Amino acid sequence: MQNEVLLMMPGPVPMPERVINAMSRQAINHRGEEFGGVYADCVRALKPFFGTENEIFLLSGSGTAAMEAAIGNVGVGRKIVSLVNGKFGERLAEIGGRYGDITAIESEWGHPLRLEALAEALENGAEVVTMVHNETSAGILNPAAEVGKLARKHDALFIMDGITSIGGDHVAADDWGADIAIVGSQKCFAAPAGLSAISVSDRAWERLSEKRPYYLDLKAYRKAGSKKPMETPYTPAVPLFFAFREACLIAEEEGLDNRIARHRRLADAVRAAAAAWGLKLLPVSDSLHSPSNTATAILYPDGISDSDLRSGVKKTGIQIAGGQDRLKGRIFRIGTMGAVGPSEVLATLASVQGTLQKLGYTPAADGVSAALEVLV
Amino acid sequence: MQNEVLLMMPGPVPMPERVINAMSRQAINHRGEEFGGVYADCVRALKPFFGTENEIFLLSGSGTAAMEAAIGNVGVGRKIVSLVNGKFGERLAEIGGRYGDITAIESEWGHPLRLEALAEALENGAEVVTMVHNETSAGILNPAAEVGKLARKHDALFIMDGITSIGGDHVAADDWGADIAIVGSQKCFAAPAGLSAISVSDRAWERLSEKRPYYLDLKAYRKAGSKKPMETPYTPAVPLFFAFREACLIAEEEGLDNRIARHRRLADAVRAAAAAWGLKLLPVSDSLHSPSNTATAILYPDGISDSDLRSGVKKTGIQIAGGQDRLKGRIFRIGTMGAVGPSEVLATLASVQGTLQKLGYTPAADGVSAALEVLV
Repeated sequence: MQNEVLLMMPGPVPMPERVINAMSRQAINHRGEEFGGVYADCVRALKPFFGTENEIFLLSGSGTAAMEAAIGNVGVGRKIVSLVNGKFGERLAEIGGRYGDITAIESEWGHPLRLEALAEALENGAEVVTMVHNETSAGILNPAAEVGKLARKHDALFIMDGITSIGGDHVAADDWGADIAIVGSQKCFAAPAGLSAISVSDRAWERLSEKRPYYLDLKAYRKAGSKKPMETPYTPAVPLFFAFREACLIAEEEGLDNRIARHRRLADAVRAAAAAWGLKLLPVSDSLHSPSNTATAILYPDGISDSDLRSGVKKTGIQIAGGQDRLKGRIFRIGTMGAVGPSEVLATLASVQGTLQKLGYTPAADGVSAALEVLV
Repeated sequence: MQNEVLLMMPGPVPMPERVINAMSRQAINHRGEEFGGVYADCVRALKPFFGTENEIFLLSGSGTAAMEAAIGNVGVGRKIVSLVNGKFGERLAEIGGRYGDITAIESEWGHPLRLEALAEALENGAEVVTMVHNETSAGILNPAAEVGKLARKHDALFIMDGITSIGGDHVAADDWGADIAIVGSQKCFAAPAGLSAISVSDRAWERLSEKRPYYLDLKAYRKAGSKKPMETPYTPAVPLFFAFREACLIAEEEGLDNRIARHRRLADAVRAAAAAWGLKLLPVSDSLHSPSNTATAILYPDGISDSDLRSGVKKTGIQIAGGQDRLKGRIFRIGTMGAVGPSEVLATLASVQGTLQKLGYTPAADGVSAALEVLV
């Protein structure tokens, strides 16, 4: 649309009209039937996407708030081990360092997690394991099931960051033994930024830290959430709840399997285009790691500057993402998250392809046609 | 309006149409010119209402998050003294207990703060003082200038909770020596719930705690806020920023003095009605303490039940507040906050008066006429 930028980044992402319109409401009292119903609708709709029967709470704060809620409620003074192969893994390790005795097990960004080092840390008494399921900074999907299995074997708690996978890719928190799982509102659910959701297992409740953060105190969320009608312990971001409820209902209507299949098909199309162009993905796959289905990280060919490509694409009204921190200038990233469909992906690929050509790169083959093969 | 409830509580409060409409927007990238401009507009407009030249940051979290940001960034391991004469003073003391060595100096709710006990605590080495400026739970306005003076005399930091006064009543953070001042979005600014703002003095920056919360780490907010365009360290609640900017512009257009005068006139009208009815206010005034100008707490006459009065008033489409915690059943509270004017106040007073009569209470005189005298 004229005067609008199509956000094809790994979040925030374009919102459906229903979600935007849901915010156009006068203020309501957040302690009452209507608000409680909104909250309850979200929880019901989220459970299958988390793959959990555990309680779920909505936090009025971004995904980072949910990361801190996870670690701050079960990690205080404990031995925490954080698996890191990207920016968000690193953030979890940073937060772990504020609350506990942290060991970061680092891989090169986009490379497989070091599970043998994790096993060793667990042998040595690690009590809490953190992992980013879908590491968008490097476009890699990490093996949550295997990490959860290792954690459970050594009776450690497993905190799984599903911020950019839940609602878009397959997640089975309970089967994988994820004691705490988190998601952000502005990612695969295509709602506005500012909310996050967190699920908490019985094992996590049993090991709740004595001294917890206040605004993010899960015990307070549990107490308020068990009221009828449901409440939050402190004033919630009400318009965002209205919007997120609508986004959850849309996801519920589409259905779990359809939604996951759509996300995978869109990512397949982006990967097909990259392959046709002769460009490599950043993530290094193995039997346990694969490229993300919600954000594709593509290595720049020699001679193409990040700012040239992204500003060229921006001129066509589309925003893609560059690399973060140490990956700045080395990759560009295309999000396929939330409510987008073939038209947005094709527009993006056409714009990227044309801009690459304009900048002097000659694609090996037509990426748009390759994507189209996947999409229809 | 049909199917809408007029919220005449001490927040959330009704929002102007401009504020509601500001949220009806597609998602934007929160790292860029447009978002930075929104953030900068808010900060510029807020400064006169805070009465500060200090930096101001917007937090994507409610007033409670701002309370925790204040204490968690300067109070870790320190001797904190919290003045308490209501629910929110108590909350600050609770948060203080999570981070430091807390002493709560308690008064009966709605009674004057014990400044001589504060002076003693400061003599004994208290390093941080917390106070709620406008304690809506008890409808009392506390003496921020005097508390700030005492704190400064003993070189302690002064955290002033202005959640329900800033934007509606006179606040002079710098003159009063408030090193940290906070406000909530859904109170006197009549924006949606979910944001808060915090100002930080040089003295507070110099005494920043080593180990701080993560999502609410003020140093991270400072670093991101000093970028051009301005940013937040983590994903912000973007639609709430749009709405809050609009609310700040409306406040700026009305002007500081007009806005304060309007809030005082509305509260005067409510107090005039209560006096005409023969009902007493809860707060005990003295030379330093006076009734709140944004929330009036009125004692129930014998024989009138809280739920009867409030449900009767609710039948007319108006929601007033009861007492919280230990004040439940003893008081009812009428908010005069944000964007409301004479019509909303008159409707509320007419409804309360009629309901009181229906429930068997005979007012001494006509409160609506008494209010009208004040309003026009």
